[in-house]
Amino acid sequence: MAIIESIPNVSEGRRADVIERLATAIRTAPGVRLLDYSSDASHNRSVFTLAGDAASVREAILALFAVATEAIDLRTHRGEHPRIGAVDVVPFVPIEGVTMADCVTLAKDVAAAVADHYGVPVFLYEDASTNPARKNLEDIRRGEFEGLAAKMASPGWAPDFGPATPHESAGASVIGARMPLIAYNINLNTDRLDVAKKIATAIRHSSGGLRYVKAMGVMLEDRGLAQVSMNLTNYEKTPIFRVFELVKREAERYGVSILESEIVGLVPSAALVRSAEYYLQLDRFSDEQLLEKKLQDVSR
Amino acid sequence: MAIIESIPNVSEGRRADVIERLATAIRTAPGVRLLDYSSDASHNRSVFTLAGDAASVREAILALFAVATEAIDLRTHRGEHPRIGAVDVVPFVPIEGVTMADCVTLAKDVAAAVADHYGVPVFLYEDASTNPARKNLEDIRRGEFEGLAAKMASPGWAPDFGPATPHESAGASVIGARMPLIAYNINLNTDRLDVAKKIATAIRHSSGGLRYVKAMGVMLEDRGLAQVSMNLTNYEKTPIFRVFELVKREAERYGVSILESEIVGLVPSAALVRSAEYYLQLDRFSDEQLLEKKLQDVSR
Repeated sequence: MAIIESIPNVSEGRRADVIERLATAIRTAPGVRLLDYSSDASHNRSVFTLAGDAASVREAILALFAVATEAIDLRTHRGEHPRIGAVDVVPFVPIEGVTMADCVTLAKDVAAAVADHYGVPVFLYEDASTNPARKNLEDIRRGEFEGLAAKMASPGWAPDFGPATPHESAGASVIGARMPLIAYNINLNTDRLDVAKKIATAIRHSSGGLRYVKAMGVMLEDRGLAQVSMNLTNYEKTPIFRVFELVKREAERYGVSILESEIVGLVPSAALVRSAEYYLQLDRFSDEQLLEKKLQDVSR
Repeated sequence: MAIIESIPNVSEGRRADVIERLATAIRTAPGVRLLDYSSDASHNRSVFTLAGDAASVREAILALFAVATEAIDLRTHRGEHPRIGAVDVVPFVPIEGVTMADCVTLAKDVAAAVADHYGVPVFLYEDASTNPARKNLEDIRRGEFEGLAAKMASPGWAPDFGPATPHESAGASVIGARMPLIAYNINLNTDRLDVAKKIATAIRHSSGGLRYVKAMGVMLEDRGLAQVSMNLTNYEKTPIFRVFELVKREAERYGVSILESEIVGLVPSAALVRSAEYYLQLDRFSDEQLLEKKLQDVSR
């Protein structure tokens, strides 16, 4: 049983009828489960979470493109969130029984089909990227739809698939493969925002910290607490427990302790099992020992 | 999707043909998965692990009784392990989507059917027990098959179901419901067996310790390490992390640290997720946030 997750971000967050047509396009692909979707009117953007095997997920994403390219026109689209396309970003994430290489293959396959069927240029990103300058989503999206024609005409910005110029109304899409993201926050036993900011600076990759951590210090005004707010972009290589322990250690420097931490949204159970292994000093533990895994394996 | 696990212990560990017939009886019950089985010749005993919904598990256990009562004769059975019946013990364990009360109901239902179909008296034990003196397996089994007729004739030992005297060749059976058992060992950074024994005494229920811990100190001769060897009989009420922390604290008293711990066999992933929550100080975490759980729920 292979499971790939995909989280397409679409540039429509206001027209309920269009959002429902997009959701229906995903739902009606055989073998696909639409796990969640939410829209933000000020961003004018919707995020869908779906899962299935490679063939099912491919079909759902192509059906989503069919609706989005027909119903969305970026020339008149306004919203707070940066975007370059009607279907702006499509990551594929390995969940179970598939490798990252499988997700990269799927990303390229879908990218080729999107370019072919809909005439939309596609940039590959993250693990599917074949160009270090075009690995980060932010770099690809810089300049947005409004600057896209000029950007694509400049050296190094020919797309990976499709036409050399933007689609008139649907712009371009960014498609790729990445590990599951974990939204992880640690609340400090203090109201000092400067401490949360210093800790964020110490632990995040961009300023010298752990490789797969994005972090910022924020204030929870209603509770009077400073928070280190993070995205963990590869829990296998930068595990939750190491992040927790490093934040705790840095906080001690300022006489501050950890009040609590929280995971926002979904988390692969493996990320928590690895943390239990660490703290319990578990020796030679295998995921095959998880009762649920055993039950699943035998039922196949 | 309701899943109940059952781990019948049968008094036959030598005749391969009989063991295979017992396994086949379980396997051929529709909807049942035989997860594992193993036999011990010196114990002359086999342990089967199976799972399914209540109706499937019931059918598998009754099929197992049919083979065992026909093929096993306790009057000629010899082995190191204590036993009172051909099918000696049958626990039902709630795994997913079922409560302990469901397993108690199933235990009573199966016990009535066993008495009715095969004329084997049944004692209920653990959570299915209706008599505090007959809750522990060891108390019910004391005296073994050889002392069973006399025991059943004494006050307080009428069975919960079936005839007042043992089945001529199949003895009696102990059927009940319990939480999953976790076999959990902690290896100490010392070769002092006395330290492991003192810690075991401190943490186990029988000598004043935690309610759902059975423990003993043993020596790992090949590694020259002392080990606290445990069974955790209710990981929800006495969680792994609390056992680990208490052993660690007791070991400090003797200047000893923990080298590593190990889980032998299967463990419900919830037991490890609870440990991760504890150490990461996770606030307001729900199992609904586990990606695998979400995928499963949506697929139903």
